[in-house]
Amino acid sequence: MTTEKALIDSALRGWKSNVERADNVFEALSPGELELEVAPGKNRLIYLWGHLAAVNDGLLPLLGIGERLHPEFDAMFISNPDKSVRLTVSGQSLKAAWQEINLNLWNGFSKFSASDWAQRHAAVSEKDFEREPHRNRFAVLLGRTAHLSYHMGQATLARPKT
Amino acid sequence: MTTEKALIDSALRGWKSNVERADNVFEALSPGELELEVAPGKNRLIYLWGHLAAVNDGLLPLLGIGERLHPEFDAMFISNPDKSVRLTVSGQSLKAAWQEINLNLWNGFSKFSASDWAQRHAAVSEKDFEREPHRNRFAVLLGRTAHLSYHMGQATLARPKT
Repeated sequence: MTTEKALIDSALRGWKSNVERADNVFEALSPGELELEVAPGKNRLIYLWGHLAAVNDGLLPLLGIGERLHPEFDAMFISNPDKSVRLTVSGQSLKAAWQEINLNLWNGFSKFSASDWAQRHAAVSEKDFEREPHRNRFAVLLGRTAHLSYHMGQATLARPKT
Repeated sequence: MTTEKALIDSALRGWKSNVERADNVFEALSPGELELEVAPGKNRLIYLWGHLAAVNDGLLPLLGIGERLHPEFDAMFISNPDKSVRLTVSGQSLKAAWQEINLNLWNGFSKFSASDWAQRHAAVSEKDFEREPHRNRFAVLLGRTAHLSYHMGQATLARPKT
């Protein structure tokens, strides 16, 4: 394995293990458990799950993999805080969306070469990228992995003991 | 910049930004605030900070950068849960240790070539590494960045509003 491939393999394994941790935590929750707050007055588990799904969905166009699958998630889970908007998704429909989004991402990730990963993401112009070559797809992958982990640290505070 | 260097640069920027976020959160806390729990009955902020310092300290030998600076942190912050062992560090001494550990790590990181990052870490044997080449230093860097982010997601729940 070349050094480039080894570095990317490590990052993809990190992404996958964090997504799987989220699968294990969220998919086991009952509708009632999804209503639990991670701390008094803080986000509910269903909000965190929807937030992570919405952010992952946004990676599809940002990384040039495809169109968004669930742009309607943003109003519920990104641009408005928890409990301010009525949720039109159930745990079951969120689970289906979560899996579909992550499968599409994974299929896209698998097609990227090392050089593809080092290319700019869709939210940075060619001109800006010349000055700031660190604004690449790989940085997005790492940043979103850390973001996922950030919220899983919160989710684990609320979930019922097994 | 070569592709290899671009990938490593992204990972180092991710590490640095997460450490700086932790600096900003923890270093601003008063002794009283460090006693706050992230959620009722969960870890205190001082425990999370010490835990992150201990884990970072463990990276020094794991990545072949140097000896541990604070092995005494493990009993307080890793091998025992919060509130089960009397802490012999203050917020001030923890801050000094945190900064010293992270400075040593950063100096070590800065000397690694791309090929150094793709080499095995100290907890994997040569033989195992042949079979499992993903157990490299770079994977440790990414995993510890996510771990840091995981606990910062928790810490942010407790810290006082600014």
